[in-house]
Amino acid sequence: MSLIVMKFGGSSVGDAERMKRVANRIVERKREGHQCVVVVSAMGDTTDDLIDLTKQICTVTPPAREMDMLLSTGEQVSVALLSMAIHSLGYAAVSFTGWQAGLYTEAVHAKARITDMKPDRVKKALAEDKIVIVAGFQGMTEEGEITTLGRGGSDTTAVALAAGIDADVCEIFTDVDGVYSTDPRIVKCARKLNEISYDEMLELANLGAAVLHPRAVEYAKNYNVTLVVRSSFNHNEGTNVKEEAAMEQGIVVRGIAYDKNVARISILGVEEKPGQLAKVFTALAKEQIDVDIIVQSGVLNGLADFSFTVALSDADKAQSVIESIRGTVGFREVTSESNLVKVSIVGAGMVSTPGVAAKMFEVISDLGISILMVSTSEIKTSCVIENGRLNEVIQALHTAYGLDTDSTVFVGGPSERR
Amino acid sequence: MSLIVMKFGGSSVGDAERMKRVANRIVERKREGHQCVVVVSAMGDTTDDLIDLTKQICTVTPPAREMDMLLSTGEQVSVALLSMAIHSLGYAAVSFTGWQAGLYTEAVHAKARITDMKPDRVKKALAEDKIVIVAGFQGMTEEGEITTLGRGGSDTTAVALAAGIDADVCEIFTDVDGVYSTDPRIVKCARKLNEISYDEMLELANLGAAVLHPRAVEYAKNYNVTLVVRSSFNHNEGTNVKEEAAMEQGIVVRGIAYDKNVARISILGVEEKPGQLAKVFTALAKEQIDVDIIVQSGVLNGLADFSFTVALSDADKAQSVIESIRGTVGFREVTSESNLVKVSIVGAGMVSTPGVAAKMFEVISDLGISILMVSTSEIKTSCVIENGRLNEVIQALHTAYGLDTDSTVFVGGPSERR
Repeated sequence: MSLIVMKFGGSSVGDAERMKRVANRIVERKREGHQCVVVVSAMGDTTDDLIDLTKQICTVTPPAREMDMLLSTGEQVSVALLSMAIHSLGYAAVSFTGWQAGLYTEAVHAKARITDMKPDRVKKALAEDKIVIVAGFQGMTEEGEITTLGRGGSDTTAVALAAGIDADVCEIFTDVDGVYSTDPRIVKCARKLNEISYDEMLELANLGAAVLHPRAVEYAKNYNVTLVVRSSFNHNEGTNVKEEAAMEQGIVVRGIAYDKNVARISILGVEEKPGQLAKVFTALAKEQIDVDIIVQSGVLNGLADFSFTVALSDADKAQSVIESIRGTVGFREVTSESNLVKVSIVGAGMVSTPGVAAKMFEVISDLGISILMVSTSEIKTSCVIENGRLNEVIQALHTAYGLDTDSTVFVGGPSERR
Repeated sequence: MSLIVMKFGGSSVGDAERMKRVANRIVERKREGHQCVVVVSAMGDTTDDLIDLTKQICTVTPPAREMDMLLSTGEQVSVALLSMAIHSLGYAAVSFTGWQAGLYTEAVHAKARITDMKPDRVKKALAEDKIVIVAGFQGMTEEGEITTLGRGGSDTTAVALAAGIDADVCEIFTDVDGVYSTDPRIVKCARKLNEISYDEMLELANLGAAVLHPRAVEYAKNYNVTLVVRSSFNHNEGTNVKEEAAMEQGIVVRGIAYDKNVARISILGVEEKPGQLAKVFTALAKEQIDVDIIVQSGVLNGLADFSFTVALSDADKAQSVIESIRGTVGFREVTSESNLVKVSIVGAGMVSTPGVAAKMFEVISDLGISILMVSTSEIKTSCVIENGRLNEVIQALHTAYGLDTDSTVFVGGPSERR
């Protein structure tokens, strides 16, 4: 008998039929003799419908606190209905809101981080042999304010609960069979991974593989929670995410990710003197702009060029921040480019295998494509290139690193993240 | 400056436009310099929509606890949106669920009674000059379970809050101008009452005048909360409900109510011996059947006839309960009649004015209508008659007791009760 946390996203419980299917899936587990705690998101379009209502009512941006009051009802509806569906199958179930489940967060709205987990009521209900259904995505501050966790919140709820009750495994049900070596919509022979390490998953998640939210992966790593990503539509083995993942013979790259949410800002003709970079990035940090890759060219005639990448949505803001410090920094021109993509190879074996990054540069160059920026870490190498021929590049890298498989894979839509 | 509790029902906040209208109404009060606490119900059809969902999902009756988890989200949506609407008008507002507002109930679902009111957060928010929006109809047990209060729950929430924060007045906004001398859909010249006492209101409420729920009136009486029933569509003076209500010169009857939810059960040919009535009514009480009027005829040849009224929905059950004790009681026959109505006159002055009841019997007799049963209390007299000529009877009584007015009144639909 194991203690299992199961997490179902909003599309898995999108309507009454799907809700009943999920209830059956949970009861199967119960029949196998396991103790089950289930985390569930708001049904399908609920959140969007609620946001539409606010647009009809509000002429100014609504307070984040009230948005949390509003949106947290979505999961409360889901948990109550799922508990009823299980009850109709003849099993005892009890639903809890985030605060009832003991999920405490910092006093921040719309993207609160979990500060504490006191799952006493969950444990008590399990001891009474009940299936426990917990609302994902939400918690409560010490002062009794309802908060939401932001993107990936339900994944994080599931992991935090799994850690809090010392569960044997945390199963994340999604609309794909697991984590793939790359996006199966681009590479038909992408392979489903049986195992992946937390660090690799973290890189893939951060690089835009939408199956799991990075915050949830980080939480799982910190509390050593074994995650399984699997399909809610079939019983195939999913992907295990854990501390140490076995590598197949001869393979060093686990997966290939891409991120189109990239803009490059270039500051040209910067006067070379100490502290210039610090001024630029302090100004950006003050405006909450995250900078990813940073490249400085060589100095020519006392003038240097800087480039860095930011999220596409931050590009205009970043450009005007730079313009605003023109007086203190001194430069000729600031430019912004979009229509770029960051392609990355990820694999824990890279650090001990020479030539892995070099092969990436070679593959891209062989396609006649310019590499605009490069960034590396112990387990990944990223290249920024123009967006136009992305699919070709990913396919070529997938083949070059020996990741192609013959089997046809399930091609799903983008996973939900809530 | 007064401290005001304002309660708006579900139809008052049925859509975005109405929600904004209610927000304006509240802000008007705030601009007048008052402190405002607002209790609001779920938007229009929300509750019905949620119940529809349960019907799609459940094959058995869903647990009442989970229904409360589900239905309480309706008010939470309302309070968040109303708070946002007020925020859009430039005023500070904060919304609270029942449990956040400190409304504690007994551990019963679907119809919990309020056990305690600890409105610390409400008081704190008022001290911060905020408009406070509280979810009606819901509370929490000491164990942290979400409960709902059942019919009239939002009225009761408003009254309990008004008592808890020692408000100057509790305004119940509805779709009619106030409490009328009788149903304005039946009597065109019904008069809106300026004042009515708790006891009279209680009788009218119990007799089916749907403006205020009896539980809320009882709570108001116990805690001496002044209620005002008024329209959410205009600024007319409403009806004041308080301990002592002034009577207009020459008028002893405040209002005329009717109740069609009546069935008469008759037990004929009962053997006359001690304890017979006790056996019958103990058996009915065990099955949770409320009995209203009871009449026993004279004894003839050692046999008596009993009649009593019950709610229409309880008639079949009552009949079979009586059949089941035939052996211990001993009677010839039990019959059930529907198509009846109970007409009542209510007025605190009746006790000190002789002949008020006699006039009622006379008016009904003059119409050639038989009075089937009679029941009296200090402030009311009720007659059960056949349903067919109800409107004529009410009109005749209204005229006979001097209640007719010349002004045309607003004719509203039935008020919501949640």
